[in-house]
Amino acid sequence: MDAIDVIRAKRDGHTLTDEQVDWVIDAYTKGAVGDEQMAALLMAIVFRGMADSELARWTNAMIDSGERMALGELGRPTADKHSTGGVGDKITLPLAPLVAACGVAVPQLSGRGLGHTGGTLDKLESIPGWRADVGHDEYIAQLRSVGAVVCAAGETLAPADKKLYALRDVTGTVESIPLIASSIMSKKIAEGAGALVLDVKVGSGAFMKTVEDATELARTMVGIGMKAGVHTVALVTAMDRPLGRSAGNAVEVAESVEVLAGGGPADVVELTVRLAQEMLAGAGVHDADPAAVLASGKAMDTWRTMIAAQGGDPGAALPVARENHVVSAPASGRLTRLDAYGVGVAAWRLGAGRARKQDPVSATAGVTWQVAVGEEVREGQPLLELHTDDAQRFPRALEALQNAIGIDTDDELLPLIVDRIAP
Amino acid sequence: MDAIDVIRAKRDGHTLTDEQVDWVIDAYTKGAVGDEQMAALLMAIVFRGMADSELARWTNAMIDSGERMALGELGRPTADKHSTGGVGDKITLPLAPLVAACGVAVPQLSGRGLGHTGGTLDKLESIPGWRADVGHDEYIAQLRSVGAVVCAAGETLAPADKKLYALRDVTGTVESIPLIASSIMSKKIAEGAGALVLDVKVGSGAFMKTVEDATELARTMVGIGMKAGVHTVALVTAMDRPLGRSAGNAVEVAESVEVLAGGGPADVVELTVRLAQEMLAGAGVHDADPAAVLASGKAMDTWRTMIAAQGGDPGAALPVARENHVVSAPASGRLTRLDAYGVGVAAWRLGAGRARKQDPVSATAGVTWQVAVGEEVREGQPLLELHTDDAQRFPRALEALQNAIGIDTDDELLPLIVDRIAP
Repeated sequence: MDAIDVIRAKRDGHTLTDEQVDWVIDAYTKGAVGDEQMAALLMAIVFRGMADSELARWTNAMIDSGERMALGELGRPTADKHSTGGVGDKITLPLAPLVAACGVAVPQLSGRGLGHTGGTLDKLESIPGWRADVGHDEYIAQLRSVGAVVCAAGETLAPADKKLYALRDVTGTVESIPLIASSIMSKKIAEGAGALVLDVKVGSGAFMKTVEDATELARTMVGIGMKAGVHTVALVTAMDRPLGRSAGNAVEVAESVEVLAGGGPADVVELTVRLAQEMLAGAGVHDADPAAVLASGKAMDTWRTMIAAQGGDPGAALPVARENHVVSAPASGRLTRLDAYGVGVAAWRLGAGRARKQDPVSATAGVTWQVAVGEEVREGQPLLELHTDDAQRFPRALEALQNAIGIDTDDELLPLIVDRIAP
Repeated sequence: MDAIDVIRAKRDGHTLTDEQVDWVIDAYTKGAVGDEQMAALLMAIVFRGMADSELARWTNAMIDSGERMALGELGRPTADKHSTGGVGDKITLPLAPLVAACGVAVPQLSGRGLGHTGGTLDKLESIPGWRADVGHDEYIAQLRSVGAVVCAAGETLAPADKKLYALRDVTGTVESIPLIASSIMSKKIAEGAGALVLDVKVGSGAFMKTVEDATELARTMVGIGMKAGVHTVALVTAMDRPLGRSAGNAVEVAESVEVLAGGGPADVVELTVRLAQEMLAGAGVHDADPAAVLASGKAMDTWRTMIAAQGGDPGAALPVARENHVVSAPASGRLTRLDAYGVGVAAWRLGAGRARKQDPVSATAGVTWQVAVGEEVREGQPLLELHTDDAQRFPRALEALQNAIGIDTDDELLPLIVDRIAP
């Protein structure tokens, strides 16, 4: 087999054979196919796309570059959730303990944030003592005892994806639905859960800006999941405005704890319960009522055990920013726009996010708001609050918010749940 | 400036700005843009093409990565020829001294063969003592004294092209008309000749298989040349059958000497004279008659001086192969097919060509034939002769010829000169 033949085949519009796919992923992972050859192949894929069967094989080859976890020994159904990333998307925090409290184990390997979208691990790390790194044995033990674990993915999970992702990042080949879908699905399938629910975000704060693209990504990922024997359902959900009333790290943990305590913003509660229903159904559990379990406090109990199992103190006070700045409503009327991208960039500039992988993030930085999109405001009323430990960050954060707020504008908001894609 | 922005712009179908083109070529030449980034950009160019002005700038940036030779000090017009490569294409050998004998200096930097197409330097190196490497001062001195020099290109000529070509070779991005055109033209323009004649081959033995592709390449190169201030004309010529009656190294030198002596195959003579006319006209010399100069023996005189100036002995016997194998006509009738690609691969397998750049070539290996396409043959009459120093090479060479010969078939041959592309 020869890398040039594989590149040419894809360049010329052919579907790669199983042998070509297996060989090129394996050879690239081992270094026998160079970055420059894979970059050319990836760009050809950007233009030519991939056939369903070809993409399933490609994803499978990525999974086979590492280990596929076996969770059968747990003796209970398992379900996993993946969000394509958004602003204020803290859903994993209440969701994982909720689903676990309903009897389905949740093996949730998560990532860190990059750019304007937050990362679940960054958020959890604002809890004093909590650590993201969990060894394999400890991971299985926690899944057995607590029923939920949210932690960093190990090096053995789809190493081909790690290498491919870094390459796509520097070669302008990120924006390709088959490449995005295979990247996400290779890791998620390798995690070994029996059911998978995908939360595909759409809107200014999401990677997919249009409902069409988001729906295509959702369909593509559901197709890959089903071909790999994982029960997969996707929801396409709104990311034109941020989720809940906070974007950052500690501020999102606080909001998640509110939800677990039976309160919290309506959209976070609605999406958490809806995703829990999908995960439970996918795992074959039809008699649990996640809304009731959330109200009962059982999910909060699981949360506390889950956090404590990873060294965190669920009762400890969360860190608070030294500097705060209030943005007031510029006029009276209905808040018709709170742009997810603008809020995300503001939170990022306040210190909640990172520009490069190796950058640290601030636990306290972020943006909170008291008014949800659709509600009435009075001129001068506090609208947003910006939090940071470094007051010099306010001006650039405020710049990001310049066009992010709209009162009585003709913006049309997406419904929270735009679509559901099932096999 | 950022490589990812440049890649994305091209990927999304935009024309790169002058600043983007200059920056990316310079940064790539210096190593600041990586091979993986350039590979992605090249593949995007394969799909998106380049606008005329963008391609002219791209070529210019490649020229500016090194030196552009100044030949004004010679005090006489200069003209250069480039062939896109074919089988039996020894035209440079009689052409350079012929044009020099007509009063126009010919600075001819040439290459070595790769695959089934031969290289001018490989052919000349079969002359005892002749060397391809000529220093800059010696080069200018020989142009002044002899009027013609055929030698290897130095490292200072379009180094960006050298790096890009090596990258294209391993990333499936060779087959792109703008990339082919800029690669050829950057080197040719950097050589500094005032006029340039391009011989764009078309047919099985050429890189361009169709007249449409060859014509597009010719037009593209003429456009680049004119924009760079070089008078450029292209001929599109036949490479469905090989040129002349020999393909190899020493065998092609022998045929070239026949032409210089006033004999030789009609097609080689015709193309040599036609290209000489174009070069002379391009250089502004309208009173020379290359056919007469060829017949007069003056071109042969220049040939001898030119070969001797580079250490070669123009009177020495050329090396002869130890083993020869005759292929006889399989039937009586008209020779309607002598496939250029088949003959080229046979010569290559006999040792005349190389598979990798570092491979040596055999001076004596090659194929010769006594019958031209279109002539009548009798069954059993000797048709081709295979030459090599290693008889074990015959079987695979004969394999390459299996479908290369046709008698009374309905093949339609291209005219020797298919088209002429002028500004």
